[in-house]
Amino acid sequence: MFYRSLLLPDLRESLAEQDVPALAEFCNALYPAVLAEVLEDLSTEEVWTVLASCPPARQAEIFGFLEGVRQVELVDVAPRKELSKLIEEMAPDDRVDFLSLLEDEQVEALLPLIAQAERADIRKLLAYPDGSAGSIMTTEYASLPEEITVADAFEQLRVQAPDSETIYYIFIVDEGRRLDGIVSLRELIQAKRTAKLADIMHRDVIAVRVDDDEEFVAQEVAKYDFLAIPVVDNQHRLVGIVTYDDALDIIQEEADEDAQMQAAVLPFEDSYMSTPLLILAQKRGVWLVILLIAALATAYTMKQFETIQEAYVWMAWFVPLVLASGGNAGSQSATLIIREMATRELNSSDKLTIFLRELKLASMLGGCLSTLSFVAAVCMVTLPQAAVVSLTVFLMVMMGTVTGAMLPILFKKLGMDPALMSNPLIAALVDVFGVVIYFSAAVLVLGPVAAVVE
Amino acid sequence: MFYRSLLLPDLRESLAEQDVPALAEFCNALYPAVLAEVLEDLSTEEVWTVLASCPPARQAEIFGFLEGVRQVELVDVAPRKELSKLIEEMAPDDRVDFLSLLEDEQVEALLPLIAQAERADIRKLLAYPDGSAGSIMTTEYASLPEEITVADAFEQLRVQAPDSETIYYIFIVDEGRRLDGIVSLRELIQAKRTAKLADIMHRDVIAVRVDDDEEFVAQEVAKYDFLAIPVVDNQHRLVGIVTYDDALDIIQEEADEDAQMQAAVLPFEDSYMSTPLLILAQKRGVWLVILLIAALATAYTMKQFETIQEAYVWMAWFVPLVLASGGNAGSQSATLIIREMATRELNSSDKLTIFLRELKLASMLGGCLSTLSFVAAVCMVTLPQAAVVSLTVFLMVMMGTVTGAMLPILFKKLGMDPALMSNPLIAALVDVFGVVIYFSAAVLVLGPVAAVVE
Repeated sequence: MFYRSLLLPDLRESLAEQDVPALAEFCNALYPAVLAEVLEDLSTEEVWTVLASCPPARQAEIFGFLEGVRQVELVDVAPRKELSKLIEEMAPDDRVDFLSLLEDEQVEALLPLIAQAERADIRKLLAYPDGSAGSIMTTEYASLPEEITVADAFEQLRVQAPDSETIYYIFIVDEGRRLDGIVSLRELIQAKRTAKLADIMHRDVIAVRVDDDEEFVAQEVAKYDFLAIPVVDNQHRLVGIVTYDDALDIIQEEADEDAQMQAAVLPFEDSYMSTPLLILAQKRGVWLVILLIAALATAYTMKQFETIQEAYVWMAWFVPLVLASGGNAGSQSATLIIREMATRELNSSDKLTIFLRELKLASMLGGCLSTLSFVAAVCMVTLPQAAVVSLTVFLMVMMGTVTGAMLPILFKKLGMDPALMSNPLIAALVDVFGVVIYFSAAVLVLGPVAAVVE
Repeated sequence: MFYRSLLLPDLRESLAEQDVPALAEFCNALYPAVLAEVLEDLSTEEVWTVLASCPPARQAEIFGFLEGVRQVELVDVAPRKELSKLIEEMAPDDRVDFLSLLEDEQVEALLPLIAQAERADIRKLLAYPDGSAGSIMTTEYASLPEEITVADAFEQLRVQAPDSETIYYIFIVDEGRRLDGIVSLRELIQAKRTAKLADIMHRDVIAVRVDDDEEFVAQEVAKYDFLAIPVVDNQHRLVGIVTYDDALDIIQEEADEDAQMQAAVLPFEDSYMSTPLLILAQKRGVWLVILLIAALATAYTMKQFETIQEAYVWMAWFVPLVLASGGNAGSQSATLIIREMATRELNSSDKLTIFLRELKLASMLGGCLSTLSFVAAVCMVTLPQAAVVSLTVFLMVMMGTVTGAMLPILFKKLGMDPALMSNPLIAALVDVFGVVIYFSAAVLVLGPVAAVVE
């Protein structure tokens, strides 16, 4: 934010004067991430004018930090030939991320202009399914054979460095590119220069498979504090690596996505501010309509108890309270269990433990809330009527808690995203049954309404 | 998970047989993170038996990956002298994290046994306020003067390597430890061996201040894809670094915390599974009670409209629907704005933009939901009655959306965590006003009740 307001006036001035050397100076002097942030405030044409002032390698670096929407807009603004040079210079994983945002025809129009080797790499990476390790990995890594010495390794690393995303982990492969070991640059620096790599490398390498889920990959990187994790195919051949910065991006995106889903918003890619209003309306509207339909079911259920309501007008006063107590307890459980499942796999004994824990929690919380609501209700209605409210609150907390904890687990088992079980959805589901519980409790405690009315 | 079930039986057997060499082999052969995971299933006494089989440096590595609860339990089990050796070997930032979990008396009992240099470092780091850059940084980094050559730098790095958390970024400081530049090991490898560090280093270093918020630090690391970010004091002297793995942990913790707060759960430190039941009950119960009190206000407000309810029993059927439409729209807005604020600072023009966007969104979503609810309600009640429901839904969506978007911004302005504006709290606040809107709409459309009853 600081850089943005400070540098923008200068940048605008250089743009107005078409001062290309000044623009080139901007590109070279600033961190790519900083410049990308400043560029967000310019028009797409202006962004291209700035980028055009510097060489393709630098262009590619800055381009990688721009928001997806802006990247796509630049395709229409930048001359196709210069754009293909920029794409050639991008890191393979960033490049594939960008190309996945384009229409198929746009990709096909760009590909012929890109150098043969890069093109083959792009086609291969684009073929991996979205959300797999293959779709987020980069193919530019440092690899060496095990039989060379540390001194030779340094020589070869110097050659590989410009084309590697990282040289801090060096992957040891055999002639068939099978992954045999790993050695860090730190270990290389500390090793004797005459030692063989085979002697210092770690042989028990933790790797992920090319079809593993990207979330799993990110969690592995986070768990082991790795700088990068190797990606292998089913013959244990090294096909790419995923670096810590990509893992970090995935973890942030997943957290955003989970938060959106929990609040009943269909996930969207870009930030709130850069997402068009109509897209936002759609992502939110779909869920609001689903929830409205669920609420209609509640209204319809309430209608069935018309006779009781006519006899007991006071019951309506506590409808929001009894329903909310179930919904709130359920949202809590669902959120905690969904976060737990986001960070690790649950086995069946875990699931049983969760069920029993939630049951115990529900009775504690239900007991407490039901006592409080009895005390409060007794100030507004008669003792037996307060007992109806209190009993319903207890049952609602029990039902809400168990439903909230178990539905995400069930969803996961059915192969769906547990985060789909959003908090408002849990609340809406609990509402329908809540109405039945509430009026049944009234009949149970106060007797059938016909008898009362007579 | 895989390792856990595979290795546990072997480990238990070695423990039963008190086979120390076998236990030492476990410690050396497995990644510390893997072993820590396997150890989670053992008793604290058994965990110490395993740790005791290997040298303090390895112990410290494994210890750093254990959950906080377990680390604290080990203090009571491990002999104080061996524990102090382990603490000496821990990375300064991990060590301070661990010591912050202990009671003050426990720390004071351990400190005298720890070597003087480490002790001074611990006291200094413990003094930084919780949640500041100082409290999460490590003091073990590689630093060099600018006047030496690349060849000399390699020599010195070899010496500094064992005591540095990372040697992939080298920080260039003057005699007063003022931070003058930064050079990556990758650049060092690619540079001429006779070049001076002053010639190849970057002088415009992005650093954070020792009192910056840890969330800000993590966001900076994430934004620039840094491996580590330097931490400076107010004289721009280098006092520590924060590495990418710590930034990643903070981002995950913050996401967990935000998710918990959004679902109205007081944040807790450890995972769901390792948090004791009573703590969970308390973290959830506090919020449920607050929400119950808010719901009582709604019940009390409803009671004020008793006459209207007696005349219009049908109105109760749609109470959950009209209230939920406001609460759901409000939760969506609050969650999106809270996530947006978690990733960047909003200026006043941003806030105005958000307000206008939400207003437009609310009218679109409100219009759509109000139409749908009119169509559905007309099947259950008369046309004017359906109009009351429909009008209320529109007003509720407008109110919910604007409240949901603006309250977190207000909270932030008041210096409070915007995530405190949890979704159930927004819903509860909207409920109270919703009841007033609903019954007022009925009087507006259908005329005063006294007239109807007559």
